[in-house]
Formats: sequence, structure tokens, C-alpha cells
Amino acid sequence: MNGPASLRHAIGVFDSGVGGLTVLQALRRHMPGRDFLYLGDTARAPYGRKPAEMVWKFSEQIANFLCQSGVGAIVVACNTASAVALPELARRCPLPVWGVIEPGVEAATRATRTGHIGVLGTPATIASGAYQKRLEARGFRVWARACPMLVHTVEEALADSPEADLLVRHYLEGRKEIDTLVLGCTHYPLLRGAIQRAVGGRVTLVDSAEATAQTVSRALGAAARQGGGGRVAHFVTGDATAFAHTARVIGGVEGEIAALDVMELARAA
Amino acid sequence: MNGPASLRHAIGVFDSGVGGLTVLQALRRHMPGRDFLYLGDTARAPYGRKPAEMVWKFSEQIANFLCQSGVGAIVVACNTASAVALPELARRCPLPVWGVIEPGVEAATRATRTGHIGVLGTPATIASGAYQKRLEARGFRVWARACPMLVHTVEEALADSPEADLLVRHYLEGRKEIDTLVLGCTHYPLLRGAIQRAVGGRVTLVDSAEATAQTVSRALGAAARQGGGGRVAHFVTGDATAFAHTARVIGGVEGEIAALDVMELARAA
Repeated sequence: MNGPASLRHAIGVFDSGVGGLTVLQALRRHMPGRDFLYLGDTARAPYGRKPAEMVWKFSEQIANFLCQSGVGAIVVACNTASAVALPELARRCPLPVWGVIEPGVEAATRATRTGHIGVLGTPATIASGAYQKRLEARGFRVWARACPMLVHTVEEALADSPEADLLVRHYLEGRKEIDTLVLGCTHYPLLRGAIQRAVGGRVTLVDSAEATAQTVSRALGAAARQGGGGRVAHFVTGDATAFAHTARVIGGVEGEIAALDVMELARAA
Repeated sequence: MNGPASLRHAIGVFDSGVGGLTVLQALRRHMPGRDFLYLGDTARAPYGRKPAEMVWKFSEQIANFLCQSGVGAIVVACNTASAVALPELARRCPLPVWGVIEPGVEAATRATRTGHIGVLGTPATIASGAYQKRLEARGFRVWARACPMLVHTVEEALADSPEADLLVRHYLEGRKEIDTLVLGCTHYPLLRGAIQRAVGGRVTLVDSAEATAQTVSRALGAAARQGGGGRVAHFVTGDATAFAHTARVIGGVEGEIAALDVMELARAA
């Protein structure tokens, strides 16, 4: 493995691309003393329209690679990968593994008063039914909508634009009565303004990045405050310069970025 | 160089990703006997929002790589790269190099009757002024509009969807009176339906993929019919499986796909 020294006992965080950086930021706010190793699978991004088997295979390869890198825990910072690969990944992996869906579900159930919850996500996340099944099993009424264009709206630096308003209104048209809306994709917190305008002030938005950071830091307890010096290293399967450029829409990248051969990753399976 | 045997004297065709496949298809229709080597820089795609210097550097690396691979000519099958890198690339390169902009400009000047021409393209293409300068220098009136979301609309398999209609209408709002509209991005021919609906039947759409294939095949003359057995090989800097999946929206990939290390490409500079 070339690139930044692997941070042993760091928390490994992975996503298809830059979206998971919103989760990384939240994790670092909650656990400033921990080291993090972020992996963005930009050579194969986006995951949101890809078949479930493909997303499963990519997720498994990355989890194996992170295990071999010596991380102490894994956060699947991608709703699509969490929807498709958990809980199976957690069963197969010798380390603690968290996704972003369970924490989002928990936060939504705490936020709702009417019991009517909405979920926005990528086509693969919504098609998996991961949010809907968990919420419905607990007696909540769910309205869910796949929003294929919203990741791109963020990555084109258009979170605050007429395009964002047009598309967000389109995806929220015809929604059922809800009082809580889960932003079921790591990019969507950047569209909070457009989404809140479209649903009105009385609907509570649930940010799964923040919910996940709370869950992980609570689960790690005292360990959350140990494990390094607050360093962060990034691996990307695509080009490092291109990753840094796209990442600016999510506040940029702190720490080193190293290229990781996607074929090396495939061999980790 | 690993992967498919390099096709010596093939025509090298490159794009940031899958969009240039529309140009490859047109080239193969016009020159069915030629071999083609297609390079999709998917590890660094999309180019449309990237700074001109970055797109220039990527284009130069790819052109050098194609020269070293033994191709006999190069087609820059990407409007963004053509806008930024031509004519400089043609000056530096020992082979004939064609872009998609000059042929599109020529086709538009032949199509217009009123002399009022519109151009749609990526932010980088429109910001470069590549179409506008060439058309205005020849006395045409130009209305140009950057359409950052349209590439993604195609790649999400939404060319025929409410999202496509919404976005196309948005980008064409407030346009000047035009009788000809250049589809200044290789993805846009797939949005022909939505675009024609938005502008009405009296506006002629100019497809630069088709115009480029005509230009190249005319320029090569008798040589257009020689140079191989109609084979095609693909190199991609991102993942081959992911490329094949995305390419389905453009009719899929014929021929072998091999992964090319983006760092090897950078060393070709």
C-alpha cells in the first residue's frame, strides 16, 4: 500500500466519492482526538444508480481493504452502500461496522410527532427499502422518493441555485403529509436550504451524518477520545487532484490524499 | 501498456468519460473499416466544471499517451477538452488532431438562415468562448448557455424524463431568437427530444458528433477506408465495470475495455 502511512486503529470511513466527507466532518467534530482514514471510491462513483450486486461487491472490497490497513472500526459513510451492504458486512467483518441508515432511522423516530416520516435518497437506497422497512416495522407511516439528480446538483456546486430549487420541488411534489424528512444521502445536508423551503418550516429535517457521528461516538465511549492525534488521511481510487476539486463543494479536504489503484482494491476481496 | 493490444494506426478518440462514445459511433458509421482506440478518462470525469488549466493538463497527457500508443490520428471527442486544448494540442502533436467544435461551427453556419445561432454546453465550454468567438468572428449573432446538469441527466438514464424536460426548459428560458442550436456537448444528442420540444420544430439542432465524423472521414479521404478491420478497443482510467454500466445509456460499449492507471497517464506528459 503506497501513500500516507496507514493509521493503525484509525476509524476507516468510506463512500463512493466526496459525499461521505460530510460524515467525516461530523465524526471529527464529535471525536477530535481520533485518527481517520477516508476512502473515496471515485473511480467507480456514483453508486446511486448502480445495481445492488455491484455496490455490494465494491463495499466488500473496500471493507476488506480497510481491515487489512489496520483500522480499528469502519463507518460506511454512504447511504447507498449502507442500504445494500449492511448488516451483512457487519457480520462478515471482524471489526465494529456502522452505517448511516440505522442512526438516521433512530433520529427520525425521535423527531416525529405524527408518526409520518419522509425519506429522500438515491435510486439504489430507495429501491433497497432499507429506510422504509425499518420504519414501517416500528409502526411509522413512510413516504419515500428517489432523487437521482440531487447528488449531481451538489457536486456541480449548485446547492444554492435555481436548478436545486426546481429539482427539489419536483422530487417533493405529491408527497404525503409528513412532519419529519430524512436526508437519506450524505450530499443532501448541503441542500438543506432548498429542501426546507420546499417542505416549509414545520417539517423537521434529519441529517444522517450528524446522527451517525453521535451513534459512533456514544458506542466507542472512552475510546472515542483515544486512538491518535486527530490526523486524517485519504485514499481515492480516482485522481487525487480531481477529488480535491470536487470536494471543495463539501468544504474541502484536510489531510493528505493518496491514489489507490482500483485493481489493488479488487484484489482485496 | 497492459490491456488490449494497441491498435497501430487506429484513430485515437478521447473523452472525459462515456460522452465521446456518441462521436465514436458516428466515426464508425462513416469509417466502418477503420480501427479505433477509445480512451475515457473516467477517474477524472466530469471535465465540465473543472478549471481550464486542469482540463488542458489532462488533455495533453492523454494526447501524449495516444501518440505513444501508435495511433495515426486523434479525435478530441469532448467539447470541453476541444474548447480548452485546441488548437494548441494540434500544434504540439505530430499527428492530425480534430476536435468537435470546428465541425459543429461549420455545420451551424450552413444550417442557419437568420444568422442567429444558439449554443448549449458545459460551464467550461461556454466559459472558454470557443463556439461564440468562432461564430461571432464570422458575423453570426450568438446566444450561449452553460447547462451544468445535462450531462448528469443523460448519465442517470433520465434523457427521457420529467427532470430532463424541467432542466432543458430552464436552460432555454430567456434565450434570444435563434433558428439553429448547437448541441455543444457529446451527451446532448441524447436529449434531442427534450431540447426540440423546448425550442419548437422550427429550430435546427446541430449534432457535433455527426459533424465531426463527416469532417474526419472527408479529411482522411481514401485513408478513411483503410487502417484495420473495424476493431475497437477501450481504455478507461476508472473502473471498467463501472464504465460499461454507465455507457449503457449511450448504447453500450463494443469491444474490449482495459483499465489504465491514471498515474501512468500522468507520466505520459
